[in-house]
Amino acid sequence: MSLLVVGSIALDSVLTPFGDTADDPGGSALFFAAAAALLHPVQVVGVVGSDYPWSALEALARRGVDLAGVERAEGESFRWKGKYSYDLSSRETLETRLGVFAGFRPKIPAAFRDARFVFLGNIDPELQLGVLDQVKEPKLVACDTMNYWIQSKRDVLLELLRHIDMLIVNDGEARELSGEWNIYRAARWLLTRGPRLAVIKQGEHGAILMAHDYTFKVPAYPLEEVFDPTGAGDAFAGGLMGHLARSNDVSEANLRQAMVYGAAMGSFAVEEFGFRRFERVTAGEIAARVRAFRDLVHFDAPAGG
Amino acid sequence: MSLLVVGSIALDSVLTPFGDTADDPGGSALFFAAAAALLHPVQVVGVVGSDYPWSALEALARRGVDLAGVERAEGESFRWKGKYSYDLSSRETLETRLGVFAGFRPKIPAAFRDARFVFLGNIDPELQLGVLDQVKEPKLVACDTMNYWIQSKRDVLLELLRHIDMLIVNDGEARELSGEWNIYRAARWLLTRGPRLAVIKQGEHGAILMAHDYTFKVPAYPLEEVFDPTGAGDAFAGGLMGHLARSNDVSEANLRQAMVYGAAMGSFAVEEFGFRRFERVTAGEIAARVRAFRDLVHFDAPAGG
Repeated sequence: MSLLVVGSIALDSVLTPFGDTADDPGGSALFFAAAAALLHPVQVVGVVGSDYPWSALEALARRGVDLAGVERAEGESFRWKGKYSYDLSSRETLETRLGVFAGFRPKIPAAFRDARFVFLGNIDPELQLGVLDQVKEPKLVACDTMNYWIQSKRDVLLELLRHIDMLIVNDGEARELSGEWNIYRAARWLLTRGPRLAVIKQGEHGAILMAHDYTFKVPAYPLEEVFDPTGAGDAFAGGLMGHLARSNDVSEANLRQAMVYGAAMGSFAVEEFGFRRFERVTAGEIAARVRAFRDLVHFDAPAGG
Repeated sequence: MSLLVVGSIALDSVLTPFGDTADDPGGSALFFAAAAALLHPVQVVGVVGSDYPWSALEALARRGVDLAGVERAEGESFRWKGKYSYDLSSRETLETRLGVFAGFRPKIPAAFRDARFVFLGNIDPELQLGVLDQVKEPKLVACDTMNYWIQSKRDVLLELLRHIDMLIVNDGEARELSGEWNIYRAARWLLTRGPRLAVIKQGEHGAILMAHDYTFKVPAYPLEEVFDPTGAGDAFAGGLMGHLARSNDVSEANLRQAMVYGAAMGSFAVEEFGFRRFERVTAGEIAARVRAFRDLVHFDAPAGG
């Protein structure tokens, strides 16, 4: 079952207490693809400038990422520069240069329009709606957004919600969009606006999946070292959607498993700068981490009650 | 197997966005006992002033709480007044009047000295050590503390850690005590200082149990309404220790279950002011909530990997 992601492709410069990078390949589409490709082939739609290091994309292509939808435009690539606090719990954006991303109008190649699983990375909700006009009959559409769009394009975003199956946002975004401080009330509110599945990412505290008739919680993997949180949310979405696409199964049982694959990929993402960790993750490591999540939360049903 | 708690018995005045109370029975020993008594009889050692509403204690006595260790001293009872922020995520202490609690020197009645499960609520670590001198052969000693003691009596606290089995603290306390910001590193540090079990409470994000060879995480119950967080941590400890005492089993499997009973009791605590909710909780409600925790975190092992 084909899996499509539309989102940003960037060059990130990240400062953490443990070191820094300059013009390192990143962006929502690439973090998503690097993680998802470990489970299932991925089709990417995005744009890069003429200065983009194409070799980084070729390395992804060798691992099952179809780049036929990556447009190479004249001009500078999208650049983001951010600095994390000493404890990695907050970050400050130092610089954003949109470059060719400013004129990005996603064009879905004909070969991608049959995609059954679609992830709309964090871009202008008008463009996200435009993508939905181009895909034929997706089985599950998931979508991310951010505070910037919640504030500046709320009406378009609310319209978009009516056309998607799953919203994947972090806790702050869920609160801002819903006006509810309680995270479960926020998720409940989202379910009244269109999506039948609300996923709320909580960083080091894991993530929640809320459907109309059940709630699932996956903790974050207990890492004693966190290196660079950049892209963890998109890697989470990649693991989640990659598992759904490879199994072609959106049942409750499989969605719960998909959340765990998401959390596993999120945990790999933060272990190194950028998405380097995904270049070396083996199937055995993924299986071991998923088993570790079971050990982490498992308890026997009490005998009496 | 007898279960003993030593801690504060207070009159709390609490201001929340949803209402307020004045001179309401509380304190670590009573929140612990109210929760634990739903699972197993509890022996309480503490002190109240001559102004304490004895009827509140008698209500607990009818539910399996042995008050033979509650001293009634001349003077004013311990009073605490606090105000919660609009979202209940932080609180400010408006007033603390120690009253007779200032002179509290726990005397364990002869009939309580055989206690097999002991919880040392948050009091001066010198007094906590003094309690350990009075109990004969406990099977498991758990202990709470707070930033005030971490700052003012660090050496005594470190000595105490060498004599207990389980430290139960919140994330901020674990960080301050260990000097480690990462919560898993903080727990690991605690395990090098004496206790073989470290429990770190994370409020709305649940709690972690770390032993030398395993880590267990229980989320918080997904409540869409939280009324008053006061005492939730002590109720958590009460559920945890109550389950251990009634089963007389400190195996890994049973400790995992005990964490869930702790989280269940913590979730009941916040549903009403003070420990009122525990006056009505039924065995059926407890069993249903424990089952709900299983539903919340359960996922099937993936077929392949």
